Formats: sequence, C-alpha cells, structure tokens
Amino acid sequence: MQEKDILFIKKTFKLAKKAEGFTSPNPLVGALIVKNNQIISSGYHKKAGSLHAEIEAIRKAKKNLKGATLYVNLEPCFHWGRTPPCVDEIIKRGIKRVVIATYDPNPQVRGRSVEKLKKAGIEVKVGVLESEARKINEVFFKNMEENLPFVVAKIAQSLDGKIATFKGQSKWITSQDARLYAKKLRDKYDAVCVGINTVIKDNPSLEGFRKSPYKIVIDPHLKIPLSSKLVKNSKNNLIIFSKKESLRKKRKIECLRKIVQIYFLTQKEFTLKNITKILYKEKNICSVFVEGGSFTLGRFFDERLVDKIYFFYAPKIIGGEKSITSVGGKGIEDLNKVLKVKDLEIKKIGEDFLVTGYVYQK
Amino acid sequence: MQEKDILFIKKTFKLAKKAEGFTSPNPLVGALIVKNNQIISSGYHKKAGSLHAEIEAIRKAKKNLKGATLYVNLEPCFHWGRTPPCVDEIIKRGIKRVVIATYDPNPQVRGRSVEKLKKAGIEVKVGVLESEARKINEVFFKNMEENLPFVVAKIAQSLDGKIATFKGQSKWITSQDARLYAKKLRDKYDAVCVGINTVIKDNPSLEGFRKSPYKIVIDPHLKIPLSSKLVKNSKNNLIIFSKKESLRKKRKIECLRKIVQIYFLTQKEFTLKNITKILYKEKNICSVFVEGGSFTLGRFFDERLVDKIYFFYAPKIIGGEKSITSVGGKGIEDLNKVLKVKDLEIKKIGEDFLVTGYVYQK
Repeated sequence: MQEKDILFIKKTFKLAKKAEGFTSPNPLVGALIVKNNQIISSGYHKKAGSLHAEIEAIRKAKKNLKGATLYVNLEPCFHWGRTPPCVDEIIKRGIKRVVIATYDPNPQVRGRSVEKLKKAGIEVKVGVLESEARKINEVFFKNMEENLPFVVAKIAQSLDGKIATFKGQSKWITSQDARLYAKKLRDKYDAVCVGINTVIKDNPSLEGFRKSPYKIVIDPHLKIPLSSKLVKNSKNNLIIFSKKESLRKKRKIECLRKIVQIYFLTQKEFTLKNITKILYKEKNICSVFVEGGSFTLGRFFDERLVDKIYFFYAPKIIGGEKSITSVGGKGIEDLNKVLKVKDLEIKKIGEDFLVTGYVYQK
Repeated sequence: MQEKDILFIKKTFKLAKKAEGFTSPNPLVGALIVKNNQIISSGYHKKAGSLHAEIEAIRKAKKNLKGATLYVNLEPCFHWGRTPPCVDEIIKRGIKRVVIATYDPNPQVRGRSVEKLKKAGIEVKVGVLESEARKINEVFFKNMEENLPFVVAKIAQSLDGKIATFKGQSKWITSQDARLYAKKLRDKYDAVCVGINTVIKDNPSLEGFRKSPYKIVIDPHLKIPLSSKLVKNSKNNLIIFSKKESLRKKRKIECLRKIVQIYFLTQKEFTLKNITKILYKEKNICSVFVEGGSFTLGRFFDERLVDKIYFFYAPKIIGGEKSITSVGGKGIEDLNKVLKVKDLEIKKIGEDFLVTGYVYQK
C-alpha cells in the first residue's frame, strides 16, 4: 500500500507541475483517481479560475467512482470560491479513500477538509512525500505562512563572483544555454525585478519564454528612460517603485502614467520588505524573480528577503577588486550571522553550472 | 591487447600517484611487469634520488623477464643521472615489449628512449591514455615545456565570491572538512605562497598534512613580523620576496637572515612572473600553491600565471560591495580576453563544494 501510494502521489506531482508559473495566486495541484489498481482518471489545475484538479479528475472519469482512491498533492479545498468545494464533490461520488501529500498551509483551512472527509466515512491518509510536496508549492507555502511573496535571486557570475568587469562590461558572462535557461525560469514566477541601474545600462526586456511576467523596477529617483524597452513594450505590467520626492517630475509621470503603475513611497517606506508586501497585498504578486544588478540583489539579501537562489557560474575568472561583485549592498558584518543556503543542488548547463538552494538563518 | 594495455597502464597511474608531492623535481612514475598475462612485479618512484620505477620493478621481479611486457606511464629515461639509464636495463633483461602512456616532455629526451628500445628489437607502444598520463604529471610537463613552476590557486569563498566580510572577518567561510582537504592539498606541491597581508592578518602556519612545504611570502616592504609563525617555525624553508628599498631595514634583515632567505628585487624585477622564474631556476621549486589573499591571487591571475584552480565554495552568502572579493588585483578589462577554465570538475566536500579546473586562454 505504502509503495503504491508513493508511486501515485509522485504522479500527482508531475501533473501539478504541468501548470508551473500559470496558476498564481493558486497552488499547483494534480489529482489522480485509482480503482482496482488502475488509474481511471487524472486532472490538474491549469490556471486561476479554471477547474480544480480534483474536480477535473472526477468529471473526466468515465467509470463509477464507488470504492475508488483519490490521490492529490495538496489537501482539497473546503470553501466556496470561484468553484464549489472539492470536498463535497469527493464525498458525493462515493470515493472510498483519499491520499494527500500535504495539508493546506493556510492556517484557516489546514486540516478542515481532512476532518470533513473523515466524518463522511472516507479513509484519509496525509503526509506522503510531504517535503517534496511543499517544495512543489514553495511559493504558495511562503504566501500562506508569511503573507509575503516568494523571492528568488538569480545571478550569472564568474567563478570569482563577478558580474561585470571594472569597466562595467557584462555581456556575456554565461553561455547562451544558461541564458536561455534563465529566461525560461522567468515563466515560473509572477514578476521579474531589477534596479534602475540595470535598466539604464542593459535596457533589458525581461520577458519570459512562454509568458510576460510583471516587471518591477526599483527606481528611487524616477530615472527610467521613456525610451527603455520596459516602458515602450509595457503591457500594463510594469510597476515602478520610486520615492515621494520624484513626484515633482510631473511631465515624466504624465508620460508614464498611461502604461505604467508607479508607487511613490516616503524615505521610510522605501524598503524592499515594504515593496514586496505591497506587491503581494495590492497586486496579488506571489513570487518575485530578482535579476539584479549588484546593488539591488545586495539590498534584497541585506534585508534577508531572499528565499531561493539560482546562481549560474561561467567557467571564467574576471578578477579585480573594482570589478562588479554579484551580491553588493552593505553585506553581512558578522560571519556568525551569515546567510546560509541549504538543499544545494548543482548541475551543469552547457559549459556553465547552476547552483540552486534555499536561504535560511534569515 | 588494447584493453589489457589500458588496464595495466591504469595500474601504473595508481602506482605513480602513491608518491604524489614527494618526487619533485622528478615526475611521478609507476611501472608494472607482466608475463603470460600475470603481473609479476611492480615499482614506483618514491623520491628524487631513489630508484626509478622501472628499475625497482625489474629488481623486484623474481622470474626471468625474457618475453615479458613492461608498462610505464612515462617514457623511460635515457641519461645517466643519479641512477643508470632505465633503457639499458630494460634491454639487458630481455623484455620483449614496452607500453608507455606518454613521451617524456623534455624536448632533449622526447622519443630518444623509444628509439633506442626499438633499435634493440623491442616492440614499443606509446600513447595509451595519454591525456590522463599528462595530467598525472602536469607539474613536470609544465616545468619541461615552459621552464616555469606549475601554479595553483586555492580559494575558499562564499557563493557570491567573497573571502571576508567588509570588516575583514574571514574565519571561517568553509567547513572543517574543506579546510582539512585544503591542508592535504599542500602536500601535493613544493611551495605554498601568500601575500604579506595574509601573514599579518591571519598569522598562518601553512604546513601540509604530511610534509612541510616551502613557504613563499610576497612582501615588498619587508613587513613580516618576527613573531609570525612562519618566521618562528621556519625550517629553513621560508623564502621572502621584497623590494630593494627594504635593504635599509638592516636590523630586521639581520634577525631574519639566519633562518629565512630573502630576495631583494628592483621595482622592475618585482613581478610574479619573475618571482616564479627565480623559484624554479634557483630553488628547484616545481610547483607553487597560492593561497591568498585577494590581492596576491588577483596579481597571479593578472599576470596570467595560474595553471590550475581549487575553488572551494561554502553554501553562504556574504554580500556587500566592500566585502573582500576572492580574486582582487586589477582584473580583466575586456570580457573577450577573460581567463577561461576547462576540464571543470565539481565535487561536494562536507557541506561545501569544490570546483577544480585548468586555466587557459592565458
């Protein structure tokens, strides 16, 4: 039983991940219905507003579900939202057993669906491959548990931690393979964030491979060029954070306002913590992919906001004490309080390699 | 035949490596004698002055060597040195076939032994696992081909390329496992080299695990403290490079002179290229393991002298534009002329990981 449960729960993970990057603010969910050891139906949540995975699986099933087992990577929903509660549908169809990888992290939901299923006489098992299940929905768990977006830092650096020469030359450090990989990573997150210096210097478009994420620019003095790609190509998904004092740039604001949303914050309000809060609460942005530059990334680490890293390393050495360091800002003063990274994974991408991991001791 | 040759040549590699770090200025050599598909004897070169691998194998063999095959990772020697030429001994014993992984890199020797063996009617095969054979003797090949020592750069850094906080705190970035591993690496090389700032700041002993390598200090203004471990524990293997102007520090020189060798160079002579030349020509130092700090490593890369890197990465992020970067110095100006690293290998060491590779496009 245990082995079969693991096998089928793994399949729900695969289903769930099909929609990675497209379900926000909802979690990734995959569901599987098994009867007499045969998979008779499956479903996954495709995007916010569309069917929940469990409902899709139930509706697609052509057989009678009496006595069947439902596998799902996240506790089914309990509330009426845009769709009816999955729990009721499961009970109605005579499903005998439900296997769930992990509880819903929302404190107001957690365990309540499981309770209701049990009360209806359904056998429920929770906690199969739980840590893997949490990882699949790491964005959602962060959102629910901390009311903040999940923050990811991406860097492309030399082996000695430089992202540009002392003359500022940065194109390109990593190979085309790594750059394409990084572009595809944007698809996984709701927003891409850069500092104004990166916009001025590199004039990036920050598009994803399959989607156009929100673009967030940290621009305290509203220096963003009207001719920048971000402004010119904005599909109403460019958000600028500036300081209140920039309000005097009236003509520029006038030009920008039609297509760009600008937040003007006081000096005190102008922290990245606060900015991420605004993004989450006001814009429903659940995840932010921070791409640079050195100063902006440094500030994100200084404020201990980063959850996950994607560090690409090119097999190159740039050297130079005046070259641009990958993570700038103020930096950690005391090694005992250093930011640590766990669950380190290293893989080769073309001639480069990529290190991913999760920041802790925040 | 080919498969067997590969198998036995691999065994000579294993034998050769037994003496790694202890044969300088000689290469690492292992030899195997096979008769009727049976290994009847083996030998390896243990240290300069002791028996050559081939001679050891021949002497240890208890059987008649007529018709046997000798396997050796490097072309046997031709000249009378401290020991008689191996070639003559091989011919004398009636060995029928000799399999050699690679030619001797010394332009004055290369191929001459092979020629002599052939003339004596012995079947000779050269070039089995040649690139691996070159790697085993990468120090010797560099010495012979460029008349310079093999230079290795070792760094222990955070994921963002820092070796100390902006306050200079550097103990410790990497774990104990990685530090022990690095200490053992010192055994592989003739000398360890650091800049004077590292001596003043860290007061390191720079000892190996099984041997006491030469210690080289780049100290232009002769600032080395008489109380430093390097001076106090010097076993006549501390060498300081200073500028001519330091000659006026007469009392300090007086104190140091008994146990320390000091080179005084003019401003113009004071390049790392020149220093490594002196080490090779005057001190017979065939390999230099450069451990830091930021400035000294930077200068070694600036002068494009580094052959191999050992970069340890701790799963930590220090950040800070004023934190100490791993490779300082001037740095590369133009990304098209960046130092590249090939044959990248990555392995985990405790919680850290180690990247090794060879610098090219020098």
